[in-house]
Amino acid sequence: MNFFTVFSFNCFHSFHSFHLFQLLVSTIDFRYITDVITPEEAISMLKNAQEGKEERIEHLLVKGYPSYTTQVGWMGYSDATIQELCKKYLDLGFTAFKIKVGRDVNSDMKRCMLVRKEIGYENTLMIDANQIWDVNEAIEWVKKLSEYKPLFIEEPTSPDDVLGHATIAKALRPLGIGVATGEMCCNRVLFKQFLQAGGMQYCQIDSARIGGVNEILSVYLMAKKFNVPVIPHAGGVGLCEMVQHLQMWEYTSLSKSMKMIEFVDQQHDQFVYPTIVLNAKYQAPVEPGYSTELKAEAIENYEYPNGKEWQKMFQEGIFEEIKY
Amino acid sequence: MNFFTVFSFNCFHSFHSFHLFQLLVSTIDFRYITDVITPEEAISMLKNAQEGKEERIEHLLVKGYPSYTTQVGWMGYSDATIQELCKKYLDLGFTAFKIKVGRDVNSDMKRCMLVRKEIGYENTLMIDANQIWDVNEAIEWVKKLSEYKPLFIEEPTSPDDVLGHATIAKALRPLGIGVATGEMCCNRVLFKQFLQAGGMQYCQIDSARIGGVNEILSVYLMAKKFNVPVIPHAGGVGLCEMVQHLQMWEYTSLSKSMKMIEFVDQQHDQFVYPTIVLNAKYQAPVEPGYSTELKAEAIENYEYPNGKEWQKMFQEGIFEEIKY
Repeated sequence: MNFFTVFSFNCFHSFHSFHLFQLLVSTIDFRYITDVITPEEAISMLKNAQEGKEERIEHLLVKGYPSYTTQVGWMGYSDATIQELCKKYLDLGFTAFKIKVGRDVNSDMKRCMLVRKEIGYENTLMIDANQIWDVNEAIEWVKKLSEYKPLFIEEPTSPDDVLGHATIAKALRPLGIGVATGEMCCNRVLFKQFLQAGGMQYCQIDSARIGGVNEILSVYLMAKKFNVPVIPHAGGVGLCEMVQHLQMWEYTSLSKSMKMIEFVDQQHDQFVYPTIVLNAKYQAPVEPGYSTELKAEAIENYEYPNGKEWQKMFQEGIFEEIKY
Repeated sequence: MNFFTVFSFNCFHSFHSFHLFQLLVSTIDFRYITDVITPEEAISMLKNAQEGKEERIEHLLVKGYPSYTTQVGWMGYSDATIQELCKKYLDLGFTAFKIKVGRDVNSDMKRCMLVRKEIGYENTLMIDANQIWDVNEAIEWVKKLSEYKPLFIEEPTSPDDVLGHATIAKALRPLGIGVATGEMCCNRVLFKQFLQAGGMQYCQIDSARIGGVNEILSVYLMAKKFNVPVIPHAGGVGLCEMVQHLQMWEYTSLSKSMKMIEFVDQQHDQFVYPTIVLNAKYQAPVEPGYSTELKAEAIENYEYPNGKEWQKMFQEGIFEEIKY
């Protein structure tokens, strides 16, 4: 049995018996995390999530899975661009928007205000600092942005600083702002600690990091145990394609509740089975596999260093080819 | 000015003025650790450590710096070998001994008993688990060894598990056993947290890890602030040569108190300026530099894959040469 078929959407309903729970759990390395979760607990959690699974699968197939957009507020965008993009993504049905912060606090306040003016307070705003601050600086800075009511501040400081994140989270809790992190988290032992310490109110697994799917499963299980929602990182080529499988599995087979998946509308056209987002909802993939297969022409054009686009750029002197 | 000359022993006394403190501190990256230590604090700590420095240098030159041995209890040694080695290192003047544990608890108890019988309770015993256990397992196991009064348990679990180490440390504190770790610690942010959380009663910096000397300096400063003794890891080729410089600097110029340095009596003959340990004391190196220069013949014999010894082993079929 191919492990990935367990994940592919159209096989969810074949995954019922105790033996199959055991098979799934047997793929996870529990070393160093048994103080938080054991294989027996994991099996029991999966078992308890069976009720209503068919309905959830049906719901996913009909309604899709909510997404948020990171496209409206990259650094360096003009006010006009931000306004225009907010309008565009509102029109596309989005209700949750993330923007970058951390370069200049006054500029951040203006950008938050601008976005709030466009999207209103009935929609969700999130902010992302990409590890820019030290701990105390993060607290002071985000406090100044609190009037714009962000749901969370993402990566306020070093991705290794569990206790720093916990300190920031504690300081921001009275303001209703959570801390999100995880895309750079190096392994399950770090995730375990983020959850134990209260350093992570939103758990942002990344499908291409740590030990791959096996280790990510352990993070999903621990997050469920701590009642911390997983909202996957998907700001990179192929990440949307992969995390949709994980997150839909989590909804149907573990937590029974929907969260959000990040959506960045780039490079999906390079994939054989691209992510499809309609009305801001990820449409449930129905092909087997992890949706990672690139089109033949994508490889032909972009493989380094022989792809056509690279060769063109070498010839134009945009890049120099490195000879090994 | 060569940064390393600041470290070399015979230049300690040239390092007095405020400007030189600033120069040293300017080599350290304080990003992500300012919630624990700032450059201003570091300068003030170094300034406060000036008093009596000449006497400490003199003391080092005359008496040397205490070491401990890891040679008596590697895994797989017979009882007779352990007894013999204990006698040998006692005769050489050693008063502190570290052995490996973690394979089998009954065997560990026997080995601890055997070593204690040889070295008595007036000498120091330390135990090292090399990351073998999960958190709760570590606590149960070490409790069973507590009657042999080890000073510390080294690397009881994952080297990334700050909170796990803190849990273990809390459980073992009533038994008078500390937790030691650090040789695998991946950066200053992790060290910061180990110190903040009480997960490290003995800080084992490794001279060849994290960001090299610059980053290690930040760890020394944080350890001093938390009153946690640094006892460097030196179980690898060249480590003894390097850490002696760091540790003697720490004694003369930061903490004013002597601790221990690990000593493994292997491969020192390959270095131009080898570590010299007499009567279990590291003799203060008097040559400039970091003592890392290998002898020409060491490179000639052991460089991979062209060194004579490698070529010999390829010819004998002991290893196969990997062609790139």
